[in-house]
Amino acid sequence: MKYKLTIAYDGTAYGGWQVQNNSTAIQTLIEHALKTTLRQEIRIIGSGRTDAGVHALAQVAHFTYTAPFDLFRLRLSLNALLPEDIRICTIEPVPEDFHARFSARSKEYHYHLHLDRVLDPFKRRYSAHILHPVDLHLLEETSRAFVGKHDFTSFANTTEDGTAASDAVRTLFRLDVVPEPGGCRLEFEGDGFLYKMVRNITGTLLDVAAGNFQPDDIPKIFAAKDRRAAGRAAPPEGLFLIKVSY
Amino acid sequence: MKYKLTIAYDGTAYGGWQVQNNSTAIQTLIEHALKTTLRQEIRIIGSGRTDAGVHALAQVAHFTYTAPFDLFRLRLSLNALLPEDIRICTIEPVPEDFHARFSARSKEYHYHLHLDRVLDPFKRRYSAHILHPVDLHLLEETSRAFVGKHDFTSFANTTEDGTAASDAVRTLFRLDVVPEPGGCRLEFEGDGFLYKMVRNITGTLLDVAAGNFQPDDIPKIFAAKDRRAAGRAAPPEGLFLIKVSY
Repeated sequence: MKYKLTIAYDGTAYGGWQVQNNSTAIQTLIEHALKTTLRQEIRIIGSGRTDAGVHALAQVAHFTYTAPFDLFRLRLSLNALLPEDIRICTIEPVPEDFHARFSARSKEYHYHLHLDRVLDPFKRRYSAHILHPVDLHLLEETSRAFVGKHDFTSFANTTEDGTAASDAVRTLFRLDVVPEPGGCRLEFEGDGFLYKMVRNITGTLLDVAAGNFQPDDIPKIFAAKDRRAAGRAAPPEGLFLIKVSY
Repeated sequence: MKYKLTIAYDGTAYGGWQVQNNSTAIQTLIEHALKTTLRQEIRIIGSGRTDAGVHALAQVAHFTYTAPFDLFRLRLSLNALLPEDIRICTIEPVPEDFHARFSARSKEYHYHLHLDRVLDPFKRRYSAHILHPVDLHLLEETSRAFVGKHDFTSFANTTEDGTAASDAVRTLFRLDVVPEPGGCRLEFEGDGFLYKMVRNITGTLLDVAAGNFQPDDIPKIFAAKDRRAAGRAAPPEGLFLIKVSY
């Protein structure tokens, strides 16, 4: 039987979903908890990696297990074994052809920008604190250039092991700038996201706000198909994986 | 000249506003930062203590300093010296007769209850996670018994050094139950609060929700004038000092 896990985590203390540089990976902790409970090595497959410091409201993963078990008790047991900043929200049986990564139709990420002059101590772990002025209208106007089907090579990093995605064409369904107290959040929804793509787009938007780029530089950056043409990467703490749709 | 500080802090890492059991006190850290910047021992007087783990959006303190200085630069300097979970929001000159504690006319505290079955990892530091059912209507109905002028002896702890308040009569202007996603918050506003009073009232309300007390037990608990007559204290992480009014 195949099972789908929905997982929320505060990524502050972790080295990301998968192992990066000796740090503790969220996936590893969940696999350990599953092994302790089900007394068998269980490998889970996530919908995608999140980086060190990135958060999730509803990361999705699947695993296969043959013996029957009580879903409610398994959730209780996993949550008792896991640290409090990682929570299993739901466990449900799924069809055999379900795959957390390959069956995903779209993903939603939010990036929180904290724009007050004095840092709000309750936002320090969950937003990027930007000290230069940010014009939300300019941000919104510039964000439109990213929506639609594009080759996002200029906004993708190669992964730690040096591989770039073979096909960098993705469709961004929407990129909305939503004001919130003390700043705004950028809402990204698309059919897939390349490594560090949300953080690189956000960083480039911030570079436009800071006057390092003009809004009409964005098409040229896309055309360059070179990561070095785009702006900085925004820091990880502002980023949340909100939803994976199947 | 006298100056008023408004301070926000995430209390998770601290032993409270004032020193308790060898832990780091928020007041001490601010006094150190003032000493480093102004090159003089400065004592600050807070509007009142907050316990270990309790948060503040706008704690108020005052200090006296004779030489002239730039308020904006002082704030920058203090925030550069302080850890990020303590922020000086404002510094302003006040009349000589201002006193952060004795001039306060009212205070507002919020207590956040997280009532979902699975803990939200982003709420774990900022709310109390209650696993038994909590009927918000019952909470609201019961909360009315606390509003008004009462002797709150049964809801006050003696302080660490064993002293009780000599006069335990306080007026609670309002106690509102406000639903919020995943739970509710209790909003307390009153002319003054005794040691652990908000947490003891919240804990007693939770004991009513859990069926350990009936709503009409509250007048009897007040009449007992004995801390042991009331319920448990709710944990510190759900409590926020929101505002001190002068």
